[in-house]
Amino acid sequence: MPDIIYILEMVGIVAFAVSGMIAARNTNMDPVGIFTIAFVTALGGGTLRDLIMDNHPLYWIKHQEQPILILAMAIIFSFCRPLRRLRESNIVLPDAVGLGVFSILGAQLALDLGHSWFIASLLGVMTGTFGGALRDTLCNEVPFIFRKDQIYASISFAGCWLYFVCQWALHSDTLALVIGLSFIVIVRLLAVRFDIRLQRDAQAH
Amino acid sequence: MPDIIYILEMVGIVAFAVSGMIAARNTNMDPVGIFTIAFVTALGGGTLRDLIMDNHPLYWIKHQEQPILILAMAIIFSFCRPLRRLRESNIVLPDAVGLGVFSILGAQLALDLGHSWFIASLLGVMTGTFGGALRDTLCNEVPFIFRKDQIYASISFAGCWLYFVCQWALHSDTLALVIGLSFIVIVRLLAVRFDIRLQRDAQAH
Amino acid sequence: MPDIIYILEMVGIVAFAVSGMIAARNTNMDPVGIFTIAFVTALGGGTLRDLIMDNHPLYWIKHQEQPILILAMAIIFSFCRPLRRLRESNIVLPDAVGLGVFSILGAQLALDLGHSWFIASLLGVMTGTFGGALRDTLCNEVPFIFRKDQIYASISFAGCWLYFVCQWALHSDTLALVIGLSFIVIVRLLAVRFDIRLQRDAQAH
Repeated sequence: MPDIIYILEMVGIVAFAVSGMIAARNTNMDPVGIFTIAFVTALGGGTLRDLIMDNHPLYWIKHQEQPILILAMAIIFSFCRPLRRLRESNIVLPDAVGLGVFSILGAQLALDLGHSWFIASLLGVMTGTFGGALRDTLCNEVPFIFRKDQIYASISFAGCWLYFVCQWALHSDTLALVIGLSFIVIVRLLAVRFDIRLQRDAQAH
Repeated sequence: MPDIIYILEMVGIVAFAVSGMIAARNTNMDPVGIFTIAFVTALGGGTLRDLIMDNHPLYWIKHQEQPILILAMAIIFSFCRPLRRLRESNIVLPDAVGLGVFSILGAQLALDLGHSWFIASLLGVMTGTFGGALRDTLCNEVPFIFRKDQIYASISFAGCWLYFVCQWALHSDTLALVIGLSFIVIVRLLAVRFDIRLQRDAQAH
Repeated sequence: MPDIIYILEMVGIVAFAVSGMIAARNTNMDPVGIFTIAFVTALGGGTLRDLIMDNHPLYWIKHQEQPILILAMAIIFSFCRPLRRLRESNIVLPDAVGLGVFSILGAQLALDLGHSWFIASLLGVMTGTFGGALRDTLCNEVPFIFRKDQIYASISFAGCWLYFVCQWALHSDTLALVIGLSFIVIVRLLAVRFDIRLQRDAQAH
């Protein structure tokens, strides 16, 4: 299913790039800053994944239409006033889609390279979360790790395992992909909506 | 001496994982946050080392029992109340052991790959200190570099050179390993105990 | 023109190492801290470039005289009182030279490895700016990305494209190198002198 994967990859890149541009917008960055944050958010997770698995050339070097697309989006975003009115709350949906797409694709690539389910799920989580973690670290005064939002990584982890089990039980890559991806996006949106955390912070400062 | 090296590697991973979990505990992280910090502390230095020396597959991908062990430790730590009473001062011993083990193992791997003593000592320092530096950056509001604690890297550097000289003079890898490792752990503990620094900060702010 | 490139590489390393030592000096670091910052500033950009392009062994491992030179500079800098009187404003010139040299060399290496102008310009910007970004993040309480100084990356990007066009139009690598390098250094110095930014911050906080 290479076509579906390529289309999904572009969807994930666009979603994460949009989330990066909204975050950069909130800190009054100039056009170059907006491109940098969009680039890092959209391609950071995949770069980490490819470096760790020694998968060269990196996917955005092989498919240079991806950084070109991000550059075009950053230029349009910088000079189009209505787009710049997006607020922080608009980040939630593209961020959830990017998380879902990159988690599943990262895990699948690790399986393709012959790794076990456990290693593949770790690489799925890294691919899905690293770009957003870089974005939040660069754009927020409070580093992402303090934001008590770590259910982010847990959802990605659970979604990867759900994907593996469905793939194994249903003998259908496409169906497993739809289920795993939907799970991550929907649970992430519900977690934000209802402010769910893994641990009640009774002992919080 | 592959067996000794493998055992030491596990000792270093357990020690650094414990130091990471104590640090994560102090910032009230949830179970996923505790696993993340333990993983990054225990495997960060070795990952940097393997990426720089193009040593693929990464050691924790080849030995997946290592991340599984860290996951098991994080689960036990999260749900076992007595363990959670550990305080910041309990971090000193596991941190010193992890520093010693990973410095020497990182330097030895670089020698095995044919690098010079100088390059091997730099890689030893990176392997020994990078995991702890990530842990401190993620868990402390003050980044590690401001904590005037840079004797950390100096001890690792001196221990690597002591290891090379002993290896060359004593014709015994095992003896050199014991001497270099003991040097780093003991000097690190003494430095913390007596608050030793390389430079008196007469001109400190 | 391998000789010119090697000489320029050493010039870039010395310039960035000096900028790192001045920055470390301003935060009262000890000799090991000064070496660490000089090392990271001078070799960080090239390390990122080589990892992304899978160009092993890394250039500072192949040319170990480079880290040895940085170590010697850090020792001299630490114990030579007159050198330590350098102030933050003295950082501007070595920083501009390092930016110019590493941007052009990073872009040229990417061309040598068969990448397109667009990918090569991205790698030029990463090579030129990553070391300085690490230096500023480690030595300043305000992370570099908030300093509204993003014209740094834009100058590097424009200089790389000027270099490609000159190379293509003038059929002379050396002339193109002189033009691209001079452009980056001079525009960077002018930007600092006249406090130029890409965007007037009318809506700044």
